Amino acid sequence: MNDKLYIKLAIEFSQKGMDSGSGGPFGCVIVKDGEVVGHGYNEVTSTNDPTAHAEIVAIRNACKKLDSFQLEGCVLYTSCEPCPMCLGAIYWARLDRIVYACSSEDAAAIGFDDDFIYKEIPLLPAERQIKTEQLLREEGITVMEIWKTKADKTEY
Amino acid sequence: MNDKLYIKLAIEFSQKGMDSGSGGPFGCVIVKDGEVVGHGYNEVTSTNDPTAHAEIVAIRNACKKLDSFQLEGCVLYTSCEPCPMCLGAIYWARLDRIVYACSSEDAAAIGFDDDFIYKEIPLLPAERQIKTEQLLREEGITVMEIWKTKADKTEY
Repeated sequence: MNDKLYIKLAIEFSQKGMDSGSGGPFGCVIVKDGEVVGHGYNEVTSTNDPTAHAEIVAIRNACKKLDSFQLEGCVLYTSCEPCPMCLGAIYWARLDRIVYACSSEDAAAIGFDDDFIYKEIPLLPAERQIKTEQLLREEGITVMEIWKTKADKTEY
Repeated sequence: MNDKLYIKLAIEFSQKGMDSGSGGPFGCVIVKDGEVVGHGYNEVTSTNDPTAHAEIVAIRNACKKLDSFQLEGCVLYTSCEPCPMCLGAIYWARLDRIVYACSSEDAAAIGFDDDFIYKEIPLLPAERQIKTEQLLREEGITVMEIWKTKADKTEY
């Protein structure tokens, strides 16, 4: 029953974000132990931030509230199936569960087509449409090697 | 030749971020028409933001500078191959090209393994390790339908 309550709230945020001219019609809430700990709606065009999808905004909001960079024990409710960027963020934040209302196909029907990105990600870098090259690997590795033995690091 | 200059700069940012205790050893710069328009390093642990990978930070920084939510004509130089979240962000921001130094395998060797996320993303929601459910699609769609005919929207 509570799932319905929270997904309705995520849908309300999708409406709120759209009505306020913040961005596309997408909303999200994050819930932990029956408490809403984060919320957000799409703010891409109003904040000039292509990463400000509802889920990313809500994850950042919840992390701020919980003073943590991990969201274990949290459930993410989103008005639309997450795009690959947001799905990646959900894995990095270690959320427990995802509940969504509209599907990617529903989003595509109103002009938001992340299917192209879903198809690109599993490809090898050389096969992708964005030209990708590797350069100076050895110089990059010298920094990474320092991390390995760094004493005062916070792992994540 | 300039590619080498900018990837070196990205690697310098990876060192700077690590040394300042901001997060993991990852740096990024974004270049447009021979000018650095954005930069960033990993800030996940210092800002409690699991989305604050070097590439995301640099994209947000460049968009702010260019006053735009799109980065057409820009090249992204990153000290390490982008994870799926960052790759998704790169597609949404419409960057032209990616140059990276270390590979995902190099990152895995120092404890940053995004291979798991790369494997999860192409799966169907029901097959993924994070439990995912769909709920109240019809209620979500009513908001999306309004977007379709909304007169004062900014498309992206």
